Amino acid sequence: MIVVMEPGASDEQIQATVRRVEELGLKANVIVGTQRTVVAAIGEKREHFKESLESGDGVSAVVPIVAPYKMASREVKPEPTQVKVLDFVAGAGSVGYVAGPCSVENEEQILSTARAVKAAGATGLRGGAFKPRTSPYSFQGLKEDGLKMLAAARDETNLAVFTEVMSTEDVDLVAKYADVLQIGARNMQNYRLLEAVGASGKPVLLKRGASSTMDEFLLAAEYILNEGNDQVMLCERGIRTFEGHTRFTLPLASVTYLHRKTHLPVIIDPSHGTGHTYMVPDMAVAACAAGADGIIVEVHPDPSKAMSDGYQSLTFDGFAKTMTRCKAVVDALRAIDQEDLV
Amino acid sequence: MIVVMEPGASDEQIQATVRRVEELGLKANVIVGTQRTVVAAIGEKREHFKESLESGDGVSAVVPIVAPYKMASREVKPEPTQVKVLDFVAGAGSVGYVAGPCSVENEEQILSTARAVKAAGATGLRGGAFKPRTSPYSFQGLKEDGLKMLAAARDETNLAVFTEVMSTEDVDLVAKYADVLQIGARNMQNYRLLEAVGASGKPVLLKRGASSTMDEFLLAAEYILNEGNDQVMLCERGIRTFEGHTRFTLPLASVTYLHRKTHLPVIIDPSHGTGHTYMVPDMAVAACAAGADGIIVEVHPDPSKAMSDGYQSLTFDGFAKTMTRCKAVVDALRAIDQEDLV
Amino acid sequence: MIVVMEPGASDEQIQATVRRVEELGLKANVIVGTQRTVVAAIGEKREHFKESLESGDGVSAVVPIVAPYKMASREVKPEPTQVKVLDFVAGAGSVGYVAGPCSVENEEQILSTARAVKAAGATGLRGGAFKPRTSPYSFQGLKEDGLKMLAAARDETNLAVFTEVMSTEDVDLVAKYADVLQIGARNMQNYRLLEAVGASGKPVLLKRGASSTMDEFLLAAEYILNEGNDQVMLCERGIRTFEGHTRFTLPLASVTYLHRKTHLPVIIDPSHGTGHTYMVPDMAVAACAAGADGIIVEVHPDPSKAMSDGYQSLTFDGFAKTMTRCKAVVDALRAIDQEDLV
Amino acid sequence: MIVVMEPGASDEQIQATVRRVEELGLKANVIVGTQRTVVAAIGEKREHFKESLESGDGVSAVVPIVAPYKMASREVKPEPTQVKVLDFVAGAGSVGYVAGPCSVENEEQILSTARAVKAAGATGLRGGAFKPRTSPYSFQGLKEDGLKMLAAARDETNLAVFTEVMSTEDVDLVAKYADVLQIGARNMQNYRLLEAVGASGKPVLLKRGASSTMDEFLLAAEYILNEGNDQVMLCERGIRTFEGHTRFTLPLASVTYLHRKTHLPVIIDPSHGTGHTYMVPDMAVAACAAGADGIIVEVHPDPSKAMSDGYQSLTFDGFAKTMTRCKAVVDALRAIDQEDLV
Repeated sequence: MIVVMEPGASDEQIQATVRRVEELGLKANVIVGTQRTVVAAIGEKREHFKESLESGDGVSAVVPIVAPYKMASREVKPEPTQVKVLDFVAGAGSVGYVAGPCSVENEEQILSTARAVKAAGATGLRGGAFKPRTSPYSFQGLKEDGLKMLAAARDETNLAVFTEVMSTEDVDLVAKYADVLQIGARNMQNYRLLEAVGASGKPVLLKRGASSTMDEFLLAAEYILNEGNDQVMLCERGIRTFEGHTRFTLPLASVTYLHRKTHLPVIIDPSHGTGHTYMVPDMAVAACAAGADGIIVEVHPDPSKAMSDGYQSLTFDGFAKTMTRCKAVVDALRAIDQEDLV
Repeated sequence: MIVVMEPGASDEQIQATVRRVEELGLKANVIVGTQRTVVAAIGEKREHFKESLESGDGVSAVVPIVAPYKMASREVKPEPTQVKVLDFVAGAGSVGYVAGPCSVENEEQILSTARAVKAAGATGLRGGAFKPRTSPYSFQGLKEDGLKMLAAARDETNLAVFTEVMSTEDVDLVAKYADVLQIGARNMQNYRLLEAVGASGKPVLLKRGASSTMDEFLLAAEYILNEGNDQVMLCERGIRTFEGHTRFTLPLASVTYLHRKTHLPVIIDPSHGTGHTYMVPDMAVAACAAGADGIIVEVHPDPSKAMSDGYQSLTFDGFAKTMTRCKAVVDALRAIDQEDLV
Repeated sequence: MIVVMEPGASDEQIQATVRRVEELGLKANVIVGTQRTVVAAIGEKREHFKESLESGDGVSAVVPIVAPYKMASREVKPEPTQVKVLDFVAGAGSVGYVAGPCSVENEEQILSTARAVKAAGATGLRGGAFKPRTSPYSFQGLKEDGLKMLAAARDETNLAVFTEVMSTEDVDLVAKYADVLQIGARNMQNYRLLEAVGASGKPVLLKRGASSTMDEFLLAAEYILNEGNDQVMLCERGIRTFEGHTRFTLPLASVTYLHRKTHLPVIIDPSHGTGHTYMVPDMAVAACAAGADGIIVEVHPDPSKAMSDGYQSLTFDGFAKTMTRCKAVVDALRAIDQEDLV
Repeated sequence: MIVVMEPGASDEQIQATVRRVEELGLKANVIVGTQRTVVAAIGEKREHFKESLESGDGVSAVVPIVAPYKMASREVKPEPTQVKVLDFVAGAGSVGYVAGPCSVENEEQILSTARAVKAAGATGLRGGAFKPRTSPYSFQGLKEDGLKMLAAARDETNLAVFTEVMSTEDVDLVAKYADVLQIGARNMQNYRLLEAVGASGKPVLLKRGASSTMDEFLLAAEYILNEGNDQVMLCERGIRTFEGHTRFTLPLASVTYLHRKTHLPVIIDPSHGTGHTYMVPDMAVAACAAGADGIIVEVHPDPSKAMSDGYQSLTFDGFAKTMTRCKAVVDALRAIDQEDLV
């Protein structure tokens, strides 16, 4: 950490800062600049020292040098993590394709979707049984009945089932049926829930909160990893910005950034990331081109009849065409990479 | 709802939209414009009709006309709600002043703070016993021991105790000691938790999520109200924007907006809303000038030793000076309002 | 336009609104809802009627139905516009590749760069001679000397020269040497400058302002088109959001959105859009996958010695590798599209 | 500046960084941490060194320690600047009140407004003669005729005339009639224009760009100061965020921040900062409570007939009531401050 003193900080203030740093078990190194003095604190342990130093008298700012997360970091584990469940494989060169409806509505809907997306090349099946809804008056999901329908579809197709869990009380129930537990964007910082899915031992798809920074995102993953669960995937699903022509703004540079900082697989959700069906194919293909380890896409037999998110769902045909394009891009880039290796 | 068709939408698409509207139990009114046709859907019931219509063929946009929340709305209850617990009163002309440390650290700390803020004019005492921390490696709070210390401070001072509850499992425990249950910004859309605090019957301070819209904020309140709990206060604590010189951007216009849309009291948190001690007094005073029904401020006996949030905490003296300014402003504006009534 | 009245608006207020609509030369259509009344104003002319109606008594909101721009709209011109200058072609199925340094520094630098990017497949050469710099103390560009060096490089390579013009006074001078006039993000709403480049008759690359909405962006293009200049390209270069790990957030969905709304070519700038060299290749490839009509990339012979933007510039080798990937993706997707046509 | 090396940076990379720092005329101080090495560069001169170091091999980040602006800084001039023109005084304890219509529409409108706002206590008159309009099809202002009407109103009332200048060509003309030249938010980084108003010698009101950081804002002021013009006022008029219930988000903490960093007066614009008439009074009063050196407010004889911005304009009566509240708050706080001095 670098503690930057105010211009004109007194010797006394600088000495107090040095003592403070030493009390925290760190080594202090004072550097007198032409306009300001800074105190470098060496030996940092990624704990709450930053806050503690920040409130000191005459201190202008504290600049952390080391990332606040450990187990999620590439510095700790340089080789990429791969998550593999049934047909689904993501990370370390493999791309996972997850598709399915926003909500499980009935057996016919989920089964027909599972078959269609499998035929198009999907390896995972998404579908919500417990639905977090902005309004208490909206459809809240089929709960356990929905989970059973998902499990039945999985049993037939070998697609890995991805479904959201919203509350610690439901973790055991959802884990009984699902292959991958999904943490929604609204719950990214619901720490008790993160601990509970960490303890479940199931692979987790952690969605980025709509206004979370990358450090917050990786620290949320750290809560799960910290429970001994190393099967965590990070899902970029768009952030809240001033833009109004999309539901969220989808920053695909997150793929590149996260690949540099963490070994965990990165999945892109172009459905929530745009909020408009017509934008989903382009963003799915772009995600693959950017090097994403997977995509998760909303698909519905008849989007105009969907109980939720119809406006951002693909039809079976739309999904199949999107998959053709995604795979073409992945193959084209893989061919180049292999050439480079020769 | 107004369903806006694409330019050049076919008669067939328009008729399909009309049928769709009627299937939803609404009355359809077609208006043919010079460039576009719109279908007005009359009789709306604030449900998920918007989503359903949006995915229709040839539909460009659906514009809701009625707010999605009911019980939080001034249309349903025009007179302001007042929340009153022990010394604390907020709403309908009364301003509540809540102060205290970020975290409860020990008995001496919380008791001395309670006495100091009471002497300065506070009517509520804040303090965290269960702490939601971005990093799993940060201090997580004293839990029940902290709650007991808060209760002891309340018993001595008659200040209403405000403290956060992070998980449904903890609601009963926290409700046993606290006077007001606080829902943190990270949990604003943790719907199971909202239902649980709603069912607890205790007054609730609901903090705005850092990127939530006003509709989302009021719908979160609606989850609590919907459980039969009408003692809900809304807390603006700053939003996430591109600004980096403050921790969050504090939009005081939220006070004016919420007063127009809802009968619930509006409390401002200038500590989280700025993230810097030196900004807190100005923003506390400005909040009072804007007509807030209360403020909630971090105060610590020695901010430079605080276990959390020291960089945004006031000293006892800083809080006392801030209170003098706040009360002067409230009094000056109240005098004008009373003159206007004569 | 749909004028939404407040709940409980009086008959008198509704009648006043109707009169207002009629005074504006529009036809009024009153729709009485169960909770609110709306007045549809038919025959709108994309003028400032929205503002005028919004301030009316009892009016809650005015919802425009028609886009505020005309000449930029696909409704007016459905077929895509193609811009073609020397080697450079963008739009209507062609992808233009523009590369070069942030600033022109000397003849050797610009000539070697032009040769290298041409060899890698570029069709345009970028380089700043007039530099808009955040600080008055930063390097401001070589001005006319820089323009001459660009022209010399163009004469040798047949690459189209793209360079920024910052002020109406400089338009004639820059137009004398450049093939495409670039309007920087900071000047997107410098209306006198837009008019001046419109009048110049040269093709224009208009960069999106860092916080401009799509309507504002297209209306800025409209200022240029309105001068009779139909050679306008729109450049997405990233928006300002809360994200700090990139310089700007690059929303590739802008490509898809703009392709739906306008006939103008859409160019992506992954250099400013990320602000980090290591992110540029992925985002360039993703832009091509998303269907962009071109990319504009910063390339420098030795980025660590660049006078500006070195931290986001590619080396010659980095650019060549990026081009290989971009072209592979464009070819792979084109092959699918042609299959679809058969 | 602190140059942070990548974890595992080689000795060679560290030595190269040291050489680079020394080549820039700075002194290098290497600090070896447990996980990373940093190189402190001492003697910085606020130039483009940051960019230059950032692109070095093995460099992770460069953290500037000194603010990039000089003449705007309180470090250079600790005492507050006061701007005084005719009736108007702002800064160093004085609050300036500027009011008037968005656009000058005719003589009667501007004269009656000038008289009304003067009677209510205003000291400055605002009014646009050159209007920057998002759409080329909107009303563009009365130009020189408007300036003459403003001058006539000033001659009668002694109010200082504030009006916008949009282009370098117009600076002389506008300066002939106006007392304060206003730079609009869209032109905050139109550097040629900043230089031109700096050279004019007239006081300048510089509006913050809707997505500009504080450093960018102060560097824009620096362009004006750098021309030898020290009569610069900074105007916070709201920033672009995800919020949709206000036109912009008005961050009043800007007042407190800017007072700490710069000696220049800070003016708040609650009209653009909210975009809704009903929010303007609360935000005007809150701005005064936050310690602003002035406010600038849109006032119109009949907002529902205004040619622009009617939806955010106050009536004469609304302005008078707002002024009563503002002055009560300023007086109440001034009384406390004077008590503190005794």
